[in-house]
Amino acid sequence: MPPVRIGLLGLGTVGGGVVNVLTRNAEEIARRAGRRIEVVHASARNLDAPRICPLEGILLTTDPMEVVENPEVDVVVELIGGMKPAGDLMRRALELGKPVVTANKALIAHEGMELFELAQRHHTMVAFEAAVAGGIPIIKAIREGLAGNRIEWLAGIINGTGNYILTAMRDEGRAFAEVLAEAQYLGYAEADPTFDVEGIDAAHKLTILAAIAFGMPLKFDEVYTEGISGIETDDVRYAGEFGYQVKHLGIARQRDDGVELRVHPTLIPERRLLANVDGVQNAVLVWGDSVGPTMYYGAGAGAEPTASAVVADLVDVVRTLTADPTHRVPHLAVVPDQISDMTVVPMDSIATAYYLRFAVEDKRGVLAKIAQILADHEVSIEAMMQKEMTEDERTLPIVMLTHQVREKDMDDALAEIEALDTVRAPVVRMRVETLDG
Amino acid sequence: MPPVRIGLLGLGTVGGGVVNVLTRNAEEIARRAGRRIEVVHASARNLDAPRICPLEGILLTTDPMEVVENPEVDVVVELIGGMKPAGDLMRRALELGKPVVTANKALIAHEGMELFELAQRHHTMVAFEAAVAGGIPIIKAIREGLAGNRIEWLAGIINGTGNYILTAMRDEGRAFAEVLAEAQYLGYAEADPTFDVEGIDAAHKLTILAAIAFGMPLKFDEVYTEGISGIETDDVRYAGEFGYQVKHLGIARQRDDGVELRVHPTLIPERRLLANVDGVQNAVLVWGDSVGPTMYYGAGAGAEPTASAVVADLVDVVRTLTADPTHRVPHLAVVPDQISDMTVVPMDSIATAYYLRFAVEDKRGVLAKIAQILADHEVSIEAMMQKEMTEDERTLPIVMLTHQVREKDMDDALAEIEALDTVRAPVVRMRVETLDG
Repeated sequence: MPPVRIGLLGLGTVGGGVVNVLTRNAEEIARRAGRRIEVVHASARNLDAPRICPLEGILLTTDPMEVVENPEVDVVVELIGGMKPAGDLMRRALELGKPVVTANKALIAHEGMELFELAQRHHTMVAFEAAVAGGIPIIKAIREGLAGNRIEWLAGIINGTGNYILTAMRDEGRAFAEVLAEAQYLGYAEADPTFDVEGIDAAHKLTILAAIAFGMPLKFDEVYTEGISGIETDDVRYAGEFGYQVKHLGIARQRDDGVELRVHPTLIPERRLLANVDGVQNAVLVWGDSVGPTMYYGAGAGAEPTASAVVADLVDVVRTLTADPTHRVPHLAVVPDQISDMTVVPMDSIATAYYLRFAVEDKRGVLAKIAQILADHEVSIEAMMQKEMTEDERTLPIVMLTHQVREKDMDDALAEIEALDTVRAPVVRMRVETLDG
Repeated sequence: MPPVRIGLLGLGTVGGGVVNVLTRNAEEIARRAGRRIEVVHASARNLDAPRICPLEGILLTTDPMEVVENPEVDVVVELIGGMKPAGDLMRRALELGKPVVTANKALIAHEGMELFELAQRHHTMVAFEAAVAGGIPIIKAIREGLAGNRIEWLAGIINGTGNYILTAMRDEGRAFAEVLAEAQYLGYAEADPTFDVEGIDAAHKLTILAAIAFGMPLKFDEVYTEGISGIETDDVRYAGEFGYQVKHLGIARQRDDGVELRVHPTLIPERRLLANVDGVQNAVLVWGDSVGPTMYYGAGAGAEPTASAVVADLVDVVRTLTADPTHRVPHLAVVPDQISDMTVVPMDSIATAYYLRFAVEDKRGVLAKIAQILADHEVSIEAMMQKEMTEDERTLPIVMLTHQVREKDMDDALAEIEALDTVRAPVVRMRVETLDG
């Protein structure tokens, strides 16, 4: 099948990220979508500005409407942001029957009802996963994954800039204004930070989340909105002394007499997972009547995390346009003839760090002997503790953490150590993973 | 449109949960799916056994094949579990062109390739969200929500029983065998706990997750599997002293020379979100090249959480069978004419707990006065701290947490307090949420 041809409006951070992801993962995406997805036409305000992505094979223009109108463009991706001209561009695309993928939370929160109605009328669709919580597939999770639930409430850290500022205020005891200036310098906050720090951005996203959670219209104007610009460092510290973290939350709750929609700084108990979501990360906690609490965590902004959501929407759109309904989503994610028969590597060749516990006799030189054998097999020790004599067995526990070592080397080292008559076999071993990338 | 008629195989814990969810949330589900979903025929081994769900309007039989063959059944939900007869029942349903929804991880892990091929041939589908991590929509997240990524690796706590046991060993210092016996008594572990504690259940789930993450065949036989039955309480404690938590993880990682597939006890740094997933909860951390780390958390087992995933699959199937492709998933989750115009309740009528900070002059009776005014307005104090005099402003900070109070009462109380000449206005206020249900 021929590729699906994308018209891209906006070549800034997110637009550049989308081109990069579509280029780098072209094969993988084609395996999943069943067709290649290619950007053929793109618009930018200034064609001479520096870009973070390659532009080979992409027709460029400063006029976004030209991209929308181009009959060679099958799907429009709108990444200009803001209300104008994004709204007009999107409306025109829908009138032409072209599906639109967007990250534009303000436009959806304000004009979504009208846009969806227009899409419906022209037998096409608007996809907006990237509008909320960046790369976290939260819209799909609520709209499809939790479709069997009555959603009772949800609460989310849905503005990364705000969370970055609050985290720095807590960890470094610095004042709001100082951290904000730093965030602006690092590119985490806009030159005009109003939308982020006054909660407007979060209110846009909460509007969308509440609508899909409760099946209600988008009601941005009725969201109670309070920002974080008035928070003092002292209060963050005092909250900590009470056992709470200050987070800027969007909260939507169904009640008998209506729904609560509110964005404000909130103290939450420090043991909650949500309280431990730090820095620019986002997370949304959703409480369904059947499933109970579920939580979704990930990067809420940035070029590639947002592009991840845009491309997921593109794959959804292409699957919808292309596959027969019963195979819209392939059982194993990729179309059947694209399943690749990967080798499962044998455990012997896998390297991990290790926790080890030796039960040894209390004799001079035992530890030195163990350390020597480990060193002989390339096992290096990261940390070690000698514990109290066990009452029942009259052995000394020695526990240690090692650096990464190949399974085979560890097996060989431990076999040798277990053969010592001063060490009780078997040695206790568990793998250690840092889970950091 | 007429209802979609479900044939349900198995009326035990999960089957009963499915009937309960479909009954209780019938309206909500119909709004989302565009049609009602009704169980019309169900099978159980013993029709006289006690049930957790109503059975009105459901034809009952002890012969599951009768349900599959019933021409009035549009979709088959298989919740018998195990390999036989579940496999034969599912194959027959697919041959009849009926979509199958299942929670059967063992069957999918072992025979999925054949079942998917059969479904494909008969233009129908197998949906298995409930097979992995209970109510967490992790299959949808990976297969659709992260479709733009090359998944680098994933690591999951995907067996609730094991996690419950490890959490109790850590928190209560009790031995594995003792906690297991308790888990069996509470119904968290089976009479034969082998699948849970020896990692086989987790290996089934990891097999499925790896296949959809990497687009590879299901290779259960090649998963390295180690259980938790050998873990001693001492090791859990020593790991804690090193700053680690012991979790039973399923890990799948893409390498240049193949994939790692392994299930084993693992030490992870205690600051990681995954390290703080306790009790019977599940969580899966997925690392995509575009999005970076994302995490999905929720109940991994139980009647209604698993039913949540089964019903989500049913809604997916019904949407696929019914809607025109471009409106398969309604923009705002429910079909357009079912959007209900909910009232957003005014902030005045919302009750939350509060954090308050008063800057007061160091004079006798100020605190008493504040406490009196709060009490007059139904604001009760949960905790209070008087802090050191501030250097610059020569006021004493008094910070407190209140119990839940209506916004209006708090507004009135604070207006009165701010009018005192011994208290500096404005009083600092932030809302407190426990997020516990």
